[in-house]
Amino acid sequence: MNDSISPSGGCVRDVAVPRPSLENNTADAERLAEALKRELAGGCVQLDYPVVRRLSAMLRSADHRLRCAVLKQGDRWRVSGIKPAADPTPMTGLAVDLGTTRVVLRLIDMQNSVNLAEAAFDNPQLRVGPDILTRIHYAEQDGGLKRLQDLIVGGLNENIDHLLNASGLSSEDIFIMAVAGNTTMTHLLLGLEPHWIIREPYIPAVNRPELLKPEDIGIQMNNMGQIFIFPNIGSYFGGDLIAGIVFSGMDTREQPAILVDVGTNAEVVLGNRHWLMACAGAAGPALESGVAGIGMMAAPGAIEAVAIDPPDRRFTLRTIEGQPPVGICGSGVIDLAAHLFISGMIDIRGKFVAETCGSRLYRNKDGIPYLVLVPADQSATGKALSIGQPDLDSLMRSKAAMFTILETITASVGLAMDELEKFFVAGTFGSLIDPVSAIGIGMLPDLPMDSYQGIGNSSLGGAALVITNCHVIERIEAIRQRITYLELNVNQAFMNRFSAAKFLPHTDPNRFPSVKVWGTPV
Amino acid sequence: MNDSISPSGGCVRDVAVPRPSLENNTADAERLAEALKRELAGGCVQLDYPVVRRLSAMLRSADHRLRCAVLKQGDRWRVSGIKPAADPTPMTGLAVDLGTTRVVLRLIDMQNSVNLAEAAFDNPQLRVGPDILTRIHYAEQDGGLKRLQDLIVGGLNENIDHLLNASGLSSEDIFIMAVAGNTTMTHLLLGLEPHWIIREPYIPAVNRPELLKPEDIGIQMNNMGQIFIFPNIGSYFGGDLIAGIVFSGMDTREQPAILVDVGTNAEVVLGNRHWLMACAGAAGPALESGVAGIGMMAAPGAIEAVAIDPPDRRFTLRTIEGQPPVGICGSGVIDLAAHLFISGMIDIRGKFVAETCGSRLYRNKDGIPYLVLVPADQSATGKALSIGQPDLDSLMRSKAAMFTILETITASVGLAMDELEKFFVAGTFGSLIDPVSAIGIGMLPDLPMDSYQGIGNSSLGGAALVITNCHVIERIEAIRQRITYLELNVNQAFMNRFSAAKFLPHTDPNRFPSVKVWGTPV
Repeated sequence: MNDSISPSGGCVRDVAVPRPSLENNTADAERLAEALKRELAGGCVQLDYPVVRRLSAMLRSADHRLRCAVLKQGDRWRVSGIKPAADPTPMTGLAVDLGTTRVVLRLIDMQNSVNLAEAAFDNPQLRVGPDILTRIHYAEQDGGLKRLQDLIVGGLNENIDHLLNASGLSSEDIFIMAVAGNTTMTHLLLGLEPHWIIREPYIPAVNRPELLKPEDIGIQMNNMGQIFIFPNIGSYFGGDLIAGIVFSGMDTREQPAILVDVGTNAEVVLGNRHWLMACAGAAGPALESGVAGIGMMAAPGAIEAVAIDPPDRRFTLRTIEGQPPVGICGSGVIDLAAHLFISGMIDIRGKFVAETCGSRLYRNKDGIPYLVLVPADQSATGKALSIGQPDLDSLMRSKAAMFTILETITASVGLAMDELEKFFVAGTFGSLIDPVSAIGIGMLPDLPMDSYQGIGNSSLGGAALVITNCHVIERIEAIRQRITYLELNVNQAFMNRFSAAKFLPHTDPNRFPSVKVWGTPV
Repeated sequence: MNDSISPSGGCVRDVAVPRPSLENNTADAERLAEALKRELAGGCVQLDYPVVRRLSAMLRSADHRLRCAVLKQGDRWRVSGIKPAADPTPMTGLAVDLGTTRVVLRLIDMQNSVNLAEAAFDNPQLRVGPDILTRIHYAEQDGGLKRLQDLIVGGLNENIDHLLNASGLSSEDIFIMAVAGNTTMTHLLLGLEPHWIIREPYIPAVNRPELLKPEDIGIQMNNMGQIFIFPNIGSYFGGDLIAGIVFSGMDTREQPAILVDVGTNAEVVLGNRHWLMACAGAAGPALESGVAGIGMMAAPGAIEAVAIDPPDRRFTLRTIEGQPPVGICGSGVIDLAAHLFISGMIDIRGKFVAETCGSRLYRNKDGIPYLVLVPADQSATGKALSIGQPDLDSLMRSKAAMFTILETITASVGLAMDELEKFFVAGTFGSLIDPVSAIGIGMLPDLPMDSYQGIGNSSLGGAALVITNCHVIERIEAIRQRITYLELNVNQAFMNRFSAAKFLPHTDPNRFPSVKVWGTPV
């Protein structure tokens, strides 16, 4: 990952501004701009009104030595704040992962790239609706958009306050904020109508917002500061994924790599420093938390890993934080399916095999088969935790969709899967899944283990890079211009690939040489 | 003067934005930017947040036909407002001459460059102090700067209101404001500390402010709008004079021209499309209104022209608006001095000649000679209006200073006075003075009459050009970069020239061949 900070790449610079003299009696603003230009080696320097307003008095009280926060956009350096160089209080930046469900903030000392504090909170827009669609419909009501904006801005300010209190700082100490979110969440933060995002031909209000001032949306930070909003590529390809690309560093590598972000949609980017190809497709909810009845997001008590051991098919379950089991999250379902398959408890179509499942298997009143994972007396809920055939069927479709998307995008550029040097998996899902299991069910290609790299919260990571490296915005702009969006037309070729992927691990087992089923001859 | 509007140079443009489709599903903001780029033939287009915020709904309600206000800065087009193209209400701009004493506003329909209304008011900062120095000292007191800013912003908003009422428009209809003022007035409008402007080495806070948003300083106009502040060259060379250069058009001419703006300081610019040289010097108050006792600014009742006719040296006076005489303004004093000289009533040193002045001349109780212009029974004040020898002495110094400044700046570039093709005189003073008289006293060089051109309120004129021609900001930036400021060191050469100019018209009468004194052989 690309989080190394070159000493010359920071967003905070100390400059000694030449003292005015009869020989150099240009104005304070222009003297600072000239000094910064020398420090920054080129480009033009823009000082906006709120900076100019404080400059003259500060220059003199600081003996002409200033500390400046800067962002680079194109060939322009934008000054996002100034303070006396001798002031020991850090200049900080705020990185924001603006998720539909969860929002994460990180306060960073921009001078030395040290993380000062982090906070996470449920997106307060959940009160209005759990998903994007509900919120967009709500935004269409009278006052709805304003309420949604107020909710998220209020949540941000409240949590900024917590971060500042924890760090002994004030809102005056925040000079840059960088926000990575999907297209709709970005629109709602900016108070832009999301109406047309979900209606053909799916048009955002803006792809690449200019830098905002804090008062534009009411964020509590230094009023000299600037807010960078990650650009999106379109309605279904948001700034969060661009942040992921930046954080993975795939846009700077010579060899092609792939980045997968799994949610209700699977978002996939393939490419290297020369080209980038992106697509998104419905992978179904099963991969995230969508198992009926006992499915849940990754949270304490969620079954996150499953092992089934010979000879008696004993289940070993691991829950998040070791809590008594409450349900099962996406990575747990994948692990479970992989182990059910290699232990012969489900067949290559993903159907329960009655003989091997034994007493764990039962049928509900409609005759549908279910497998007990946790008996009632061992679960946190007091009820047995069971998984049904429909859940497995849903998982089969999801994993097939995911593999088909990966296969389609890779084939579209004429690459074979094994030419991918790196396979980045973003998000909590990426941190939790066991690549062996994901390969075992044929969801991910059978690459060497060290190709796979979970990169955690890459939206937050990408946003943090903007704050700690002044050249990252240029990379973001280059990514935006270089990326090609592949429309996943569900044509016959796609459907053929999809059908072939709806088996465990695949109709063509030669593609998954590492997957071994109990009793399969080695 | 350069006020012709090329059809392609306006600040208001109608664009048909391509409708979104599955083939062109880029965001609304980017589709408008692309359409504008085609209309504007190049450069990049920047849409700030307040514009983006209104765009999506407006695009659709306006059937994708928008009217846009634009300003060009460098290679960037800044969009200062949008509205449906079919909306019949004009997009207007506001030109402001921000004078120390008087402020003038002009509301302009930007689409057809028609002046809608004009208002003038005394700068409300007069309540604090009449001149720049007093106001700067006041600004240093606690809350002083804020009060000065509030006074001028309040005055502007009140008068904007009058203009809008008179035109049947609302503040939402103003999209661009352009302000030309001297360096200190600009600082006070922007709330920037003027403290260092008057202290060696005379440093403004800023020379070239970025475009402001209306809320930056609290101007009542459309919040999508932008405020352009004319840049200054330094503490003593303000944006008002740059506006004058633009309005005169001297920066676009092949042949050298000169521009003179006379106030307490004489500000002079010499140059052409290739180079510009500027200087300013104390010309003394006599040229504006500084005659002791009866001196006044140009206003109703001011003597603005004087003729003295042979054979009996009868005085014919013309007052502004034909009112009974109250006093004498700058142009009147110059006229008077010229006619006193050619009629032999003062000598070449500017001293009264008792024999020719006759009964009009008297001495006050200190023995100082005075000349009666208007007997008590003919004046509006009921007292005789007289001019004293000290007034004439002061005028002699002022006119000598002015001529010396003109001679020095012209000589500095190796030109002779008669190589100047155009001689622009700005301000009310420029509109009122009779060049024959100004040449007659040796204040202005003896050029052909058609060289002289009074250009009136050139600050306002220059500001109006910014609003009606989108390429004027580029010219302003070019002027700023091209101009050389000549420090008028009062050295021996200057003093020699000054001494030679302290005669009527000059020690070297060959330089003023057109000046004929009564009885001088032709």
